[in-house]
Amino acid sequence: MRAITISSPGEPEVLQLTDEPTPDITADEVLVRVHAAGVNRADLLQRRGFYDPPPGATLIPGLEVSGTIEKLGSEVTGWSVGDRVAALLSGGGYAEFVPVPAGQLLPVPEDFDLTEAAALPEVLSTVWSNIVGRGRVEAGEWLLVHGGGSGIGTAAIQVANHLGVKIAVTVGSERKAEFCRELGADAIINYRDEDFVDRVHEICTHEDGSTGADVILDIIGAKYLERNIKALNTDGRLVIIGMQGGTKTEINLGWLMQPRKTVSATTLRARPKEQKIGIVTEVADRLWPAVISGDIRPIIHETLPIAEATRAHQALEDGTNIGKVLLIVDEEGSRP
Amino acid sequence: MRAITISSPGEPEVLQLTDEPTPDITADEVLVRVHAAGVNRADLLQRRGFYDPPPGATLIPGLEVSGTIEKLGSEVTGWSVGDRVAALLSGGGYAEFVPVPAGQLLPVPEDFDLTEAAALPEVLSTVWSNIVGRGRVEAGEWLLVHGGGSGIGTAAIQVANHLGVKIAVTVGSERKAEFCRELGADAIINYRDEDFVDRVHEICTHEDGSTGADVILDIIGAKYLERNIKALNTDGRLVIIGMQGGTKTEINLGWLMQPRKTVSATTLRARPKEQKIGIVTEVADRLWPAVISGDIRPIIHETLPIAEATRAHQALEDGTNIGKVLLIVDEEGSRP
Repeated sequence: MRAITISSPGEPEVLQLTDEPTPDITADEVLVRVHAAGVNRADLLQRRGFYDPPPGATLIPGLEVSGTIEKLGSEVTGWSVGDRVAALLSGGGYAEFVPVPAGQLLPVPEDFDLTEAAALPEVLSTVWSNIVGRGRVEAGEWLLVHGGGSGIGTAAIQVANHLGVKIAVTVGSERKAEFCRELGADAIINYRDEDFVDRVHEICTHEDGSTGADVILDIIGAKYLERNIKALNTDGRLVIIGMQGGTKTEINLGWLMQPRKTVSATTLRARPKEQKIGIVTEVADRLWPAVISGDIRPIIHETLPIAEATRAHQALEDGTNIGKVLLIVDEEGSRP
Repeated sequence: MRAITISSPGEPEVLQLTDEPTPDITADEVLVRVHAAGVNRADLLQRRGFYDPPPGATLIPGLEVSGTIEKLGSEVTGWSVGDRVAALLSGGGYAEFVPVPAGQLLPVPEDFDLTEAAALPEVLSTVWSNIVGRGRVEAGEWLLVHGGGSGIGTAAIQVANHLGVKIAVTVGSERKAEFCRELGADAIINYRDEDFVDRVHEICTHEDGSTGADVILDIIGAKYLERNIKALNTDGRLVIIGMQGGTKTEINLGWLMQPRKTVSATTLRARPKEQKIGIVTEVADRLWPAVISGDIRPIIHETLPIAEATRAHQALEDGTNIGKVLLIVDEEGSRP
């Protein structure tokens, strides 16, 4: 089958379209014929050699796809060959075929665009597992998300609205600010113009007189650690899912203790299969109905053929995208 | 009334027995005639001027007492004058009388030693709110507690046994190790003889092949931060409730991310009344029956008259105590 592989760690040009063996499946997996694959920041890190796949996972990048079921493992029930699906993966999405544990599949209705479905499994699983799972955000609380225009950011805005959570986002341009406002963000902070800590305490006010974000979803890491902790409300939870601003820094535990704050860091990819299935099951129950109804919609920046994976990675590295970049693997498409 | 006050911040000698006005109560409070008061490490910090009482709280130290109800606020139901009680306080325990929100009371049966009851409200509330509330420890998981011989440590061992949680403790002497072993600790690490990180990964093994503590209850802070994080299992939670080893240190967020670890710090005293009541209610439901039945028992190092508060603080500062130090306020006592 055709697949994108990494010739050696490096710049986007190391991504090459090669011929790879079609993968086998185990008893609890299905083989998905891939229609489209989502491009994620973790793929960029893997390409640079910073983010090795978990043990046993393929070296082909790609953490989410849409497509149709080509083959069923002997123990799989509830799915049929030909079913339209979206899937959360441990890797292997940039390819014509990918094996997927049946518990990591989401159903895609006939009238839902199969390309757009590829934009959802990773961001919804990431947003859900971190803001609800780790952050335990509740309706009425304030959530702050850095990078409101990213795939994660645009999903978080819609998920927050769906859950009755108030959401503030940071952005780096007026164009992204405008987009996030229209998508439903309650407050937008342009981090180039103003200090987000001060603004968060002005914006995020609570009935008991306290101020600050109850949960922060962060992609910056060390560079923002102190400021993120200081932007939290009492009992607030900081969940770090990216370290674009480095890993090492100073911490004063006094920032945490009196206001009872929590710092957590997670990554979705390294979670064992059982946790991934648990997360996808919750996404299917709690968010997928809103996707089907159109309340939560995929935000897509650009769609490129799989042969242009290099350009797709460049687009994400530029950081000018609003929403997701997708690769089309099956050129014939499967539009409704 | 007689009460202990702090003449000025400093050494134990600044504690003085003085005559203070008997406090008023509000509609949702009861006035407790104090029999005994527990001495806590937070009292030592307050005495040194490092730990100001929350706004509105008395300057008299003392976070837990036992005694009898002297007077009821107009809105208090379910309690009667003369009832034997233990209570979690925001301060004011080193005194003949203390006002207590009715929701922060625990009932003391007639056949339970009223002196010993003063040893329980703070430690049980601290252990419960941190290992279960913050740490979300579950039956079958491994808990590591630093300072197994302390009031918190001796309570944590018993609470862990009661909840089906496996517990390892660190201690600094063979005498404390022996005591903790007899009390029911599953593993004891003498931190003077061996590195606790290595030992924890040897001791705390899991069915899925992972190693490390699922929850750590820490009183050291900065000095142990890196080692505590490294002693955690994947998805582990570090809960810091003391900073005897300082507040400032380096952190590498990479220690947290791949293994999805969480660092939290809390203090019980600064929690608003509603949270204190919530915690005491949970302690009453989930732990107090085991106290009444004798499964969880108060561990008492020494009992001193209130006039010897200075000696009580010295005993805790020496760190040779196993279990709690109590002050007897009402010399007549109320033994069964």
